[in-house]
Amino acid sequence: MNKSKYTIYGINNCITFLSNKNHFTILKIFINKNSSAFKNEKINLFLKKYKNEISYLDNKLFNQKFPFKHSQGIFLEFEGVIEKTIDELLVEKSDSCFLIIDQVKDPQNLGQIIRTSECAGIDGLILPRHKSVHLTNVVLQVSQGAFIFANICIENNIVNTIKFLQSNGYWIIGIENSIESKNWYEMDYKGKIAIVIGSEGKGIRRLVKESCDFLATIPMKGKTNSLNVTAAISAILFERNRQISVK
Amino acid sequence: MNKSKYTIYGINNCITFLSNKNHFTILKIFINKNSSAFKNEKINLFLKKYKNEISYLDNKLFNQKFPFKHSQGIFLEFEGVIEKTIDELLVEKSDSCFLIIDQVKDPQNLGQIIRTSECAGIDGLILPRHKSVHLTNVVLQVSQGAFIFANICIENNIVNTIKFLQSNGYWIIGIENSIESKNWYEMDYKGKIAIVIGSEGKGIRRLVKESCDFLATIPMKGKTNSLNVTAAISAILFERNRQISVK
Repeated sequence: MNKSKYTIYGINNCITFLSNKNHFTILKIFINKNSSAFKNEKINLFLKKYKNEISYLDNKLFNQKFPFKHSQGIFLEFEGVIEKTIDELLVEKSDSCFLIIDQVKDPQNLGQIIRTSECAGIDGLILPRHKSVHLTNVVLQVSQGAFIFANICIENNIVNTIKFLQSNGYWIIGIENSIESKNWYEMDYKGKIAIVIGSEGKGIRRLVKESCDFLATIPMKGKTNSLNVTAAISAILFERNRQISVK
Repeated sequence: MNKSKYTIYGINNCITFLSNKNHFTILKIFINKNSSAFKNEKINLFLKKYKNEISYLDNKLFNQKFPFKHSQGIFLEFEGVIEKTIDELLVEKSDSCFLIIDQVKDPQNLGQIIRTSECAGIDGLILPRHKSVHLTNVVLQVSQGAFIFANICIENNIVNTIKFLQSNGYWIIGIENSIESKNWYEMDYKGKIAIVIGSEGKGIRRLVKESCDFLATIPMKGKTNSLNVTAAISAILFERNRQISVK
């Protein structure tokens, strides 16, 4: 896979990155001389290693170059490969879980999904190459550093990916409101599973849905009936963690 | 309580509002003549009732006045009282749940929390008057119409509100990572309860925490250890719905 250039900003985000930069190469670090980042001890400890990459800017110039609300005075450019291959993602463990995100369009949602998934400790996320938001700088920023550990893989054909996972012993659970769907908590999330969730509004595509072994839904109890995709994923991934903990 | 003026935009958001406008007064509706809102049948059906309030604008003028990414060509101004009082919120039912949000600062988070809470069917949200984001237009927009049904109440003193709820038979569960905290799924969410969640980063304030009857936590399974407050609320409210459904 080709290396790409990315940017992130904000103190916590950059500290998470600098403490776990793995195989990424830091290209440039910009620091606002009148900022909380400039005075931050942890940041300064890390910065010692990157003397050649740092530029200190005055307040006016920094804010001109990086007009982001929550930059906190630090902006970082790096290069590397975030994506992994599906083969790298497969793990040998009794409880394994992937999340397949079928054509989510909103970078805020994808960033939050990466963050929630990493906190829930699943083994990887799979996105389709087409008609989906990918790993943009906004996605990375919203994920708050979770992209470093999240094991993200982009596949050409999600139906083929599902077949590949099934042939490796994974059961596929689609989250979709349909007559055949069981309640989300009646589903067994133990063992090897992959959870498929669809795009905002449209849900899972027909062929992808037909490849699922089970369908589950979260019934709404209010009047608006529109749970955000990231909220639905949180409810499901922590229901999985509950089932694994109490088994 | 005093009436306030608010704005919302976007087709779905405005349709939800127009179909449930209750006691709100519509002041102005702006429509872009070259937009999907202008051609939307449902929107046009509602607009018949508001001939005096509508202004049709050409594309250039509309985008100048309302430079919002997802306006879809409709922008609506209304007036009314969204807040309720704590007395209005109390309901006589066997399973009742309030969410107390202690000093959340980010309007995106509060909007998502309102949306998730309404979908989960809880009885109301309680916010402190000070050091908390309130019902701004951004919050309303992100809630996607859920603010209409969400029963939101703003209180001067959260510790007093907790005492009031306790005297009305409510058990108070604080979500906080502490030595005494149980796992979130070991908590009993049936009956009358109020869940307290703290601000991004800082958690629940000490005096508020000390007023809680129980503390619960969601252990992280990843490396970043920073679940978003809205994701945590989703995991907990749907665990409550699971417990109520299977009892």
